[in-house]
Amino acid sequence: MRQTFDETTDPSFGEKHLPLVRARMAAQGLDGFLVPHEDEHQNEYLPEANERLAWLSGFTGSAGAGAVLKDRAAVFADGRYTVQVRAQVDAKQFEILDLTDGGVAAWLEGVPAESVIGYDPKLHSPDALAALETAAAKAGAELKPVDSNPLDEAWEGRPEQPRAPVVPHEDRYSGETSADKRARIGRSLKDKGADVAVLTAPSSIAWLFNIRGGDVIRTPLPLAQALVRADGTAQLFIDPRKVTNELPGWLSKAVEIEASDAFASALESLSGRRVLVDPAVSSAWVFDRLQAGGAKVIRAIDPCAIPRAAKNSVEIEGSRQAHIRDGAALTRFLHWVDTTAQQTLPDEREIAETLERFREETGALKDLSFDTIAGSGPNGALPHYKPVSRTIRRMEKGSLLLVDGGGQYLDGTTDVTRTMAVGEPSADQRRMYTLVLKGHIAMAVVRFPAGTTGHQLDALARLPLWMQGFDYDHGTGHGVGSYLGVHEGPQRIAKAPNSQPLLTGMILSNEPGYYREGHWGIRIETLQVVTAPQAIAGGERPMHGFEQLTLAPFDRRLIDVNLLTSDERAYVDAYHAEVQSKVGPLLAGEVGDWLRTQTAPL
Amino acid sequence: MRQTFDETTDPSFGEKHLPLVRARMAAQGLDGFLVPHEDEHQNEYLPEANERLAWLSGFTGSAGAGAVLKDRAAVFADGRYTVQVRAQVDAKQFEILDLTDGGVAAWLEGVPAESVIGYDPKLHSPDALAALETAAAKAGAELKPVDSNPLDEAWEGRPEQPRAPVVPHEDRYSGETSADKRARIGRSLKDKGADVAVLTAPSSIAWLFNIRGGDVIRTPLPLAQALVRADGTAQLFIDPRKVTNELPGWLSKAVEIEASDAFASALESLSGRRVLVDPAVSSAWVFDRLQAGGAKVIRAIDPCAIPRAAKNSVEIEGSRQAHIRDGAALTRFLHWVDTTAQQTLPDEREIAETLERFREETGALKDLSFDTIAGSGPNGALPHYKPVSRTIRRMEKGSLLLVDGGGQYLDGTTDVTRTMAVGEPSADQRRMYTLVLKGHIAMAVVRFPAGTTGHQLDALARLPLWMQGFDYDHGTGHGVGSYLGVHEGPQRIAKAPNSQPLLTGMILSNEPGYYREGHWGIRIETLQVVTAPQAIAGGERPMHGFEQLTLAPFDRRLIDVNLLTSDERAYVDAYHAEVQSKVGPLLAGEVGDWLRTQTAPL
Repeated sequence: MRQTFDETTDPSFGEKHLPLVRARMAAQGLDGFLVPHEDEHQNEYLPEANERLAWLSGFTGSAGAGAVLKDRAAVFADGRYTVQVRAQVDAKQFEILDLTDGGVAAWLEGVPAESVIGYDPKLHSPDALAALETAAAKAGAELKPVDSNPLDEAWEGRPEQPRAPVVPHEDRYSGETSADKRARIGRSLKDKGADVAVLTAPSSIAWLFNIRGGDVIRTPLPLAQALVRADGTAQLFIDPRKVTNELPGWLSKAVEIEASDAFASALESLSGRRVLVDPAVSSAWVFDRLQAGGAKVIRAIDPCAIPRAAKNSVEIEGSRQAHIRDGAALTRFLHWVDTTAQQTLPDEREIAETLERFREETGALKDLSFDTIAGSGPNGALPHYKPVSRTIRRMEKGSLLLVDGGGQYLDGTTDVTRTMAVGEPSADQRRMYTLVLKGHIAMAVVRFPAGTTGHQLDALARLPLWMQGFDYDHGTGHGVGSYLGVHEGPQRIAKAPNSQPLLTGMILSNEPGYYREGHWGIRIETLQVVTAPQAIAGGERPMHGFEQLTLAPFDRRLIDVNLLTSDERAYVDAYHAEVQSKVGPLLAGEVGDWLRTQTAPL
Repeated sequence: MRQTFDETTDPSFGEKHLPLVRARMAAQGLDGFLVPHEDEHQNEYLPEANERLAWLSGFTGSAGAGAVLKDRAAVFADGRYTVQVRAQVDAKQFEILDLTDGGVAAWLEGVPAESVIGYDPKLHSPDALAALETAAAKAGAELKPVDSNPLDEAWEGRPEQPRAPVVPHEDRYSGETSADKRARIGRSLKDKGADVAVLTAPSSIAWLFNIRGGDVIRTPLPLAQALVRADGTAQLFIDPRKVTNELPGWLSKAVEIEASDAFASALESLSGRRVLVDPAVSSAWVFDRLQAGGAKVIRAIDPCAIPRAAKNSVEIEGSRQAHIRDGAALTRFLHWVDTTAQQTLPDEREIAETLERFREETGALKDLSFDTIAGSGPNGALPHYKPVSRTIRRMEKGSLLLVDGGGQYLDGTTDVTRTMAVGEPSADQRRMYTLVLKGHIAMAVVRFPAGTTGHQLDALARLPLWMQGFDYDHGTGHGVGSYLGVHEGPQRIAKAPNSQPLLTGMILSNEPGYYREGHWGIRIETLQVVTAPQAIAGGERPMHGFEQLTLAPFDRRLIDVNLLTSDERAYVDAYHAEVQSKVGPLLAGEVGDWLRTQTAPL
């Protein structure tokens, strides 16, 4: 397992690195420079070579931004990272500001008039840039694209770009050949009046060509770019050192492999062609190259995004198998928490490592799907907490332990959260756990018509909390890839509007929570897949639903049965019976006995 | 009560009027012309003089569009008007197309290349026009604004523009003086960096100046335009014949009254001023005048929209009183349906007229708030059905009667739907009614945090239907004005995204339904007002909720108590007790006795 990045930075970075960046800014005649967290590939996880914001400021959150002026600077982080950003960033060097409440745009409105603020057009999508340009105009400032990123110039000892070999992702996992996928995407381009599409999202490239890479931690992405044409042929632009011997044969002659350097000229050569490109995903630099070359740009969603999100039957069956395997590992872990750990009260790092070890012992784990969250007591009340040295706590009698982790397997990506009592839970803890569970169940059993989007369903998981005066400040569900990103769009279940209907085969998490600040946190997360619309006896319209993929018991000591309806209680019993029937056979001896007890009817 | 407009048109209009319009189009060198339903004021209800689409085609729906080419023409209507449009429009003259599924824009994509399609810039907002222009560009056609509307030129005997006197709306109803409102709006303009705002929505003008008019049926709107400045002063542009003697004194010296003709030059005189205008509400013509005059346009929501929607305590108390009065009228009607009408089986027109008579007998009714819907049997399954001669049915034993109506009172606007059994209801009817009722109750009792929007709540009212394989194809709730429009934005409870949080004091309907095509329909609608966030005992966050305004019993014969939870049953009993305590005292004798029986515990 590769090390996580969180503890490789230092709050002293700001004092050391800001002057270097400012010197390069000055050399380019810039009064300021913007440093988004996103890299050239708009990934959630970055290769170290692209951790520009971390190098500048020390901040390692998975979302954020920095902004540097001559005499001041700021780091922007969202509510998930309130604690982390203050621990990692030197507040004497940087103002620490909220990423979401206006964010960089609001900050830009306050820069001095006439300022020239540089940005690297490879790091900003046109959608993101539009808001920044409006804000700069309000301040009377100018946003200026740079040819050479001053931070990159200033970064001595910058790691090499990763060059993990790119390997085939076999049809028995993908369920559809790349040729079939390219033909399908080609037809969709014709329907949209496009001759060719630009793909810059590594997850789209991985999906379309049935390849996987190892360029970033936690997600098997190949960093690359591609063009795919309406006739199903394609060009793949990739560092030649990542091309394995087997790759050309796997890709077939319909896919030309070219060096990454050739991407710019390929874009500029599309004169007069109708080129589909996604302004939320591809960078302003891509649009500039297309414009320079005289292409006719069609702005539309990445044509691979929805086909990738709606899994086929082979991918779904793979996910089921991955979840049985992962569920067995998780059950071994939950048994350990419920027995050994209740005596030894290990710290959060030991807890995370133990879960990781059980996952590794499946023999099928390729990587974690994200850094394991193990939050004991008050740390569990930080929804995106990760154990690092300065905050680490031990398990604590009378409190709760929240563990959120997942694995990358060839046949599927997992992501599961369970919350466990340490010692005897209080009535308060049981009440709150049960309210969260009621919302979780409502989302698990819901039936809904075709066309329903995530913003329509989100409140179902919150309602039991709302009715009692509680809520949680994160989304209810995110999309999940198939041996790809653990966070995948465009589907999502959240308060904010989302125009993407939930389609058959989309995998989403269902993860309501409750966080008692300074005390403990609760989250219950399973992955579930959207089922095809099915008739309901006595009903008129076929309805989608969710099939539960994650298989791991709830902590029955935390369930207050008196707060459940008979239907909710029946749901828990049926789910537990399913866990027992699918995961039980993989577990012998003490763990097997333990699972039988845990999954007995309430 | 003024006559409704529905039966004043004729399917022969198309054959008579299309050639006249085409002749005027030809004289202006146009290959086509667009005829939106909306008029210069973007109202839902139009004065007859502005019923251009009805004059052209015969179609009188409250939303729609027409499009005329040299050799063909089309009328667009939405799902509510599927039946009506086919009855009213000559299909030999017009293709009948769906307004929502691509609508006029999709149609424009199919016009011949090089076509010049005229439009009247006073009748289209820039937001609406943008989509049309994109579509015309795809076809290689040109959209061209006309100076003189060819349909208006062709329309012989066009009615006069209405000139109902404009009257003060007293502070005891509005709860805030116009001076205070203008000062408040002035401050909000300053906050947005605007010097002046253009108001073209008659409802905003009515609200801001505390005036009401009578220019359109069903809504006491004064058709006018206005400018309001950051210092709270204003100009009101209005037909001088509508200005009563008392109006100048009521408006005070801070409001200059000018003739409607002066509006264009006033817009053109705003050179260099920062002018706020709503591109969803004001017409392209307004934007053109501002641009011609050199104003700096700030596109933003009408500054009166949200203050108007979030009612103050006087308006809410007024609505409560209006609903008690209206509830008594409705109860007299429901008693009549349950007694006399069960014997005489009247037709839908008699039913609607009877309800209207009871409302008139309150002595306080100014107008209906919309044309009463009385749907017997299969007609009840058409959600926006109105009884007209060719479709009229009598009440029918063994079926259901759906009645949806409302009143305009000085202290409030009402809108209520009740569904009643005729004869003995079937188990099927009771099951479906109860499922609708369960959704209605879920929406009535929900508590929700600040910032929640209607798209988050919508599914709560649908869930009991979804779980059994049913749904309804309309929104769950619309905003309602205070002696203003019965449909008022920007708040809304529907599947579609809506960015407007539900604010304290907003009045919304709660109206789930179920429609058994060809048989009968069910809808249960009450108005409810958003309550201020209140703490919940044992909870952490204060939560909004809804206070029920509408007071009228549900038909208890249609409730299958076995399908209700104990909480739902308690809700019905508590609601009925409230109806009895508030409306009961207004009803003596047989009707009073009847209400006591209807509101007894289930």
